[in-house]
Amino acid sequence: MNEQHSQEELEKLRHSAAHLLAAAVMELYPEAKPTIGPATDEGFYYDFDFGSAPINEDSLVEIEKKMRFLVKNWGAFERQEVSAEVALQNYRYNSYKTELIDEIVQSGEVLTLYKSGNFVDLCRGGHIEKPSVNLKYFKLLSLAGAYWRGSERNKMLTRIYGTAFFSQQELDEYLKMKAEAKERDHRKLGKELGLFVFSDTVGKGLPLWTAKGATIRRELERFVVDEEIKRGYQHVYTPDIANLDLYKKSGHYPYYKESMYAPIQIEEEEYMLRPMTCPHHFELYNAHPHSYKELPMRIAELAKLYRFEKSGELTGLIRVRSFCLADSHIVCMKSQAKSEINGVLDLIEYMAQTFGLQPGVDLSYRLSLGDRADDKKYFKDDASWDFAEDALRQVLQERGSKFVEAEKEAAFYGPKIDVQMRNVNGKEDTAFTVQYDFVMPQRFDLQYVNENGAVEQPVVIHRSSIGAIERTIAFLIETFSGKFPVWLAPVQVKILPISDKYLDYAQEVYSQLLRENIRVELDNRSERLQAKIRDAQMEKVPYMLVVGEQEVADKTVAVRSRDTKEQNVVSITDFLANIKSEIQERKL
Amino acid sequence: MNEQHSQEELEKLRHSAAHLLAAAVMELYPEAKPTIGPATDEGFYYDFDFGSAPINEDSLVEIEKKMRFLVKNWGAFERQEVSAEVALQNYRYNSYKTELIDEIVQSGEVLTLYKSGNFVDLCRGGHIEKPSVNLKYFKLLSLAGAYWRGSERNKMLTRIYGTAFFSQQELDEYLKMKAEAKERDHRKLGKELGLFVFSDTVGKGLPLWTAKGATIRRELERFVVDEEIKRGYQHVYTPDIANLDLYKKSGHYPYYKESMYAPIQIEEEEYMLRPMTCPHHFELYNAHPHSYKELPMRIAELAKLYRFEKSGELTGLIRVRSFCLADSHIVCMKSQAKSEINGVLDLIEYMAQTFGLQPGVDLSYRLSLGDRADDKKYFKDDASWDFAEDALRQVLQERGSKFVEAEKEAAFYGPKIDVQMRNVNGKEDTAFTVQYDFVMPQRFDLQYVNENGAVEQPVVIHRSSIGAIERTIAFLIETFSGKFPVWLAPVQVKILPISDKYLDYAQEVYSQLLRENIRVELDNRSERLQAKIRDAQMEKVPYMLVVGEQEVADKTVAVRSRDTKEQNVVSITDFLANIKSEIQERKL
Repeated sequence: MNEQHSQEELEKLRHSAAHLLAAAVMELYPEAKPTIGPATDEGFYYDFDFGSAPINEDSLVEIEKKMRFLVKNWGAFERQEVSAEVALQNYRYNSYKTELIDEIVQSGEVLTLYKSGNFVDLCRGGHIEKPSVNLKYFKLLSLAGAYWRGSERNKMLTRIYGTAFFSQQELDEYLKMKAEAKERDHRKLGKELGLFVFSDTVGKGLPLWTAKGATIRRELERFVVDEEIKRGYQHVYTPDIANLDLYKKSGHYPYYKESMYAPIQIEEEEYMLRPMTCPHHFELYNAHPHSYKELPMRIAELAKLYRFEKSGELTGLIRVRSFCLADSHIVCMKSQAKSEINGVLDLIEYMAQTFGLQPGVDLSYRLSLGDRADDKKYFKDDASWDFAEDALRQVLQERGSKFVEAEKEAAFYGPKIDVQMRNVNGKEDTAFTVQYDFVMPQRFDLQYVNENGAVEQPVVIHRSSIGAIERTIAFLIETFSGKFPVWLAPVQVKILPISDKYLDYAQEVYSQLLRENIRVELDNRSERLQAKIRDAQMEKVPYMLVVGEQEVADKTVAVRSRDTKEQNVVSITDFLANIKSEIQERKL
Repeated sequence: MNEQHSQEELEKLRHSAAHLLAAAVMELYPEAKPTIGPATDEGFYYDFDFGSAPINEDSLVEIEKKMRFLVKNWGAFERQEVSAEVALQNYRYNSYKTELIDEIVQSGEVLTLYKSGNFVDLCRGGHIEKPSVNLKYFKLLSLAGAYWRGSERNKMLTRIYGTAFFSQQELDEYLKMKAEAKERDHRKLGKELGLFVFSDTVGKGLPLWTAKGATIRRELERFVVDEEIKRGYQHVYTPDIANLDLYKKSGHYPYYKESMYAPIQIEEEEYMLRPMTCPHHFELYNAHPHSYKELPMRIAELAKLYRFEKSGELTGLIRVRSFCLADSHIVCMKSQAKSEINGVLDLIEYMAQTFGLQPGVDLSYRLSLGDRADDKKYFKDDASWDFAEDALRQVLQERGSKFVEAEKEAAFYGPKIDVQMRNVNGKEDTAFTVQYDFVMPQRFDLQYVNENGAVEQPVVIHRSSIGAIERTIAFLIETFSGKFPVWLAPVQVKILPISDKYLDYAQEVYSQLLRENIRVELDNRSERLQAKIRDAQMEKVPYMLVVGEQEVADKTVAVRSRDTKEQNVVSITDFLANIKSEIQERKL
């Protein structure tokens, strides 16, 4: 059963499974009203109006059992074209289906019913040939509420999620991946490891970082800042609020208004929580005149930004109402743009590799282009668009990076390269962007004096090196399942004396490590060693140093990593040298 | 003339000088209307309504000349009690004086006029005996606008500032100090050294830090965070905005409302730019249960805070609308409070010493107490007030720190120790505070489980280690006149090749320093050495490394400090070792 099936076949299988689900539900809950049941990227669902019937996660077992029973007698789906009258008669007790029927009729489409076993459903088609043979490897996964047609104004229905594959192996792999992703969920691990909390009194979508979570964040922030400075970036600080006029000047206001929070009245002026740093950096650039010798000027900031998210859409550290972006705006001559973009991609790839991501494998590139015909969405300047799109394309080509081109995905001020990444759920998302901008330099009248003493206009590259700190940490928690590399681990070493007799020596080791700036804890509880080891493992501390009689005598420590049961006895000096080089090199 | 004069005598001298100023003005501008002219901490002023008479800084020379001429004939002031009728008649053309006369009459006070020379003024008295002998060492300083009686609703008058002393030496010293303070003004130096800028488009009172200023800030912030962590603080990050409910819960809202910005409506809730971190840290503390073993828990944060300042009162980095506070809240048992306060004072003194300030000399202590009788301003709990005030007093006594006690200067939730400091203008100000708080633990229901398993309430110590980063940097700029210690200097070393012939070697030295994380610049202009030295001195770069033929041959550098003309030839290795230890030790 390991033959390859196309995406289309898989969709047919899953859509057939949705029919089977509805059939089972109707057998068990004759009063329920089926509505729609499509295939999805990861399986299928079906939405029902269960009326007053009690339904919960436990019911899924029974429904699935019924599905397995019914499918044995399911042959090929029989297609039947029907008139509106017949269709409406068929669904006279189901207003959801009649609403659909009316729409199909109005569109002029043919009305079709599909039957397999004893179950008939209004459907456009797309099923597998032999349900009784191929529809075996499925599973119902969860229940959720879903508004009819996705609108809050409509009734809340019950959605049953499931998935189906062509083989048990594929199904098992999928379920294992989902279970692991659930275990790795940064919200779950963040809580278990005590990294951050949320408080409704403080506010929704506003994480509070504990000392442990803050340690990860601080290490990450310092790494970014130091690495960028090494690469010639000028790190600055600009205010998190600004006069509304600034965003009107930048032209962001009409485009971003919906993403911005309400203004704060201060004396006669209106101030905004900033949704981006670009105009701040341009004002800073404009505070002094500049010569071509100063370009490229890579203005960077760890900037707190505020963008509106509906409370219902807030998700852990991934969708928050305030986040900290590792942002930069490179002001450069047009002739420097390609080399700057190249440098940015080098930096992004270096950062990603530090986290164990391989360009080309874990990262992929997308070139997002404008649309010369759409003057409303895109700033009109065909020559600049052509130049910029070519420049970005050439950089990717010259680097030998594989990339796809996406029409009409550019920002209003220019084309961009999106660096795409898969998260632990296997879903692809834009992690970082490198944007070419020829509009803001005009809006802000950015200038430099060229070699001949004449005034010229630079271009701007907008970029992030690791994106939003919150989102990056969510990613790191999930990627490492909370087992952070030593340089990021909130506690790097835990000292576990075998009994209280060795506390003095344990304290000595502790102080020695502390002096060397190792993040170390001493487990001085009167617990059994096994309990201490178990707790340190739960906390995912990279190294445990077990100390007992032999270690005291030899001035050594028995090193145990969080992943193995072996203990390796070494001198304190050697342990320190090893861990320090591991931190220094940011070893994975 | 170097005999000691009391503060009272100095005030009499200066008040007499104000009379003399008014006399001179009336001789030169007969249409001007004198209003009031008191002595101040640093001299005196007199406010006039000059009508349409043109008056500017140049006029002060002439007025001062007239003062010197008139004073020769000024004998003792003659006091004359007059009736309201006579006084009003005397000032029939001066509505300011008649307003004052009416008030004096209403208060039942005696109306007195004082005359010296030919000049008579409405006055309560307090003059020197012999103006012609003692009123010699004075100077007019500046002009400013000042509303009549300090209210924006009244007419803008012209204020003339001056000062007077009993000796030329004292006057000279004062003028020198003022001139130096002006040279050191952080706004002036901040601009000259390119450390920060303001932009009206971004907003008032919101500094934008250039890369150079940001370097100082980053070094300072990392120093504070690292030092605090060494001392057992747990650095966290909490959001800069929070639901209004949080400040209602903390009880800050009614007290701080006027200092807070207007709320931001988000969906159904109101959010505030936070004016303090206390309630954020308490919510974080409450996210998990705590044992007595975890106390003291020293929660710290570099926190951005927002407090309302009128646009007219904004002053460089000293009065801003958003600032970053090195804040902390120590949650501890009552029995730990004294030792924690002691630790905080140790930290504050350590930080201050790092900046060259000596406790007892540059820093002084004030114990700010509550008022048992004022239940409106102070939380009612006499026993807690007594305990807390005693604890703070004992800590100061046991440390042998001199301190004054200030009645009714406490916060509403408990007494505090204010660490006072003089700025470059010689004015004393509260630099840091250590506050004892027994109210918030109740409001937030902070708890810990004691040794016997019972729930108890901790107390909280609020403290800052170096205060607001902005204000501290303003102070550092002024204290060091922009000549920052090497560890804080934005550029630590500048390499000056004597001519272009030595550029290769200069570049080699530059790369070597850069690899060692020294903030280094290479002056590769084809300028004369003298010009390069002059520019580096203007930028107040600590070390210039001059390289020429000899240095290339010997692989050395000629080190020149910003303060001396001597050059000291050393190997690159030695220079690196020296500067690195200087940075490491934060040498002044």
